[in-house]
Amino acid sequence: MKAYALVGGPTDLWLHDIKKQLTEAKQNNDLIFGVDRGALFLEELGIIPDVAIGDFDSLQAKDLSRIEKTVKDIRYSNPIKDWTDSEIMVQTVFKDYLADKLIILGASGGRIDHFLINLLMWLNPPINQFAQRVEIIDNHNSIVFFNPGVHIIKKKPDYPYIGFATLSETEDFNISGARYDLNDYSSTYPRVFSSNEFLPNSDYFEISLKKGMIAAIYSKDINRFHNL
Amino acid sequence: MKAYALVGGPTDLWLHDIKKQLTEAKQNNDLIFGVDRGALFLEELGIIPDVAIGDFDSLQAKDLSRIEKTVKDIRYSNPIKDWTDSEIMVQTVFKDYLADKLIILGASGGRIDHFLINLLMWLNPPINQFAQRVEIIDNHNSIVFFNPGVHIIKKKPDYPYIGFATLSETEDFNISGARYDLNDYSSTYPRVFSSNEFLPNSDYFEISLKKGMIAAIYSKDINRFHNL
Repeated sequence: MKAYALVGGPTDLWLHDIKKQLTEAKQNNDLIFGVDRGALFLEELGIIPDVAIGDFDSLQAKDLSRIEKTVKDIRYSNPIKDWTDSEIMVQTVFKDYLADKLIILGASGGRIDHFLINLLMWLNPPINQFAQRVEIIDNHNSIVFFNPGVHIIKKKPDYPYIGFATLSETEDFNISGARYDLNDYSSTYPRVFSSNEFLPNSDYFEISLKKGMIAAIYSKDINRFHNL
Repeated sequence: MKAYALVGGPTDLWLHDIKKQLTEAKQNNDLIFGVDRGALFLEELGIIPDVAIGDFDSLQAKDLSRIEKTVKDIRYSNPIKDWTDSEIMVQTVFKDYLADKLIILGASGGRIDHFLINLLMWLNPPINQFAQRVEIIDNHNSIVFFNPGVHIIKKKPDYPYIGFATLSETEDFNISGARYDLNDYSSTYPRVFSSNEFLPNSDYFEISLKKGMIAAIYSKDINRFHNL
């Protein structure tokens, strides 16, 4: 079973067909999670989330009370907390609801500390085991994560670029069969290898690493040559 | 001397008064750097950059030729490169132009691999020495960086929240005198401590670390309770 989580980032970086995608997901009986203001946005899109998570301090009382009436499973987080709302969401998705895959929407834009939680929480050992089943999507980017091992990177239609970020200490990171290959890169700190591409007529290439964690960032320019 | 660098991120996450700020900067004889499409945006804002840097592959020929006619110092980067455009910009700002402080605009939104370069390049040893003289600003956030030592975190008007990201292996990170304090936090991987605040009637608190690098992310919600 697939799960979608809408978190509370600004709506202007959403996928343009987010309402269509989430409506179809609901019809397919995929799980829908709303995190904090994301729960309100879901209801406003006409989708009642299966689970709402947060301290809901970005909601006015009347909006919270509407959510409390309609959503069956609400998890109240503590603002003075060991776990962030996003970390509670991930554990609920995979441990309580046993989803296979999680798509996170609304995670970029707005507060950068919030985005960085969604990007970096996968390094946290209790969360790390779920990293390879996750995708973070906005209107320019699709991010997936890789733990040590050998991995096939598949081309995604409409995303001409792909960049890799080593998110922590890294041993022997290799990129093989892409436009720009990389051999046995090791480092004690994060680094970004941006603007890679698939070779012409090739739909995949390989990466591998011995230690660390990689975020693969597929991206596109909405309007590459735009002027002001 | 202060330097401003406009990089090529989407214009909708710019500070709303960016034109006013950059026009005043130019009048004050601050340095203005345009990175790739940022150089074109500057000219369109009526500001001729002192330096333009990039491979300029996001510019059409006629726009590049206009920049080549007006900008005195152009640094052409190599797309197959050891240094990113942003890293070349930082070294030009501090080593060739001897600026005291650098403000980076247009770094967020759009391609997340590009944003992560601007966030993480300060870990790279040749760039690290300049980190504490830099600020990255967009319409929601102001990010500053700290190397090991003891640092005073000053309140910024209009930014109610502050989060801290440990960007690499960290030893003994402390937050003292804030709403949520932290004692001797050490970790081998990056982590985010978000949504901290200044105590009432307090304009500063202290952080310290023995090893690692911290990004302090001041942020605000444009419209905290907004509905769709």
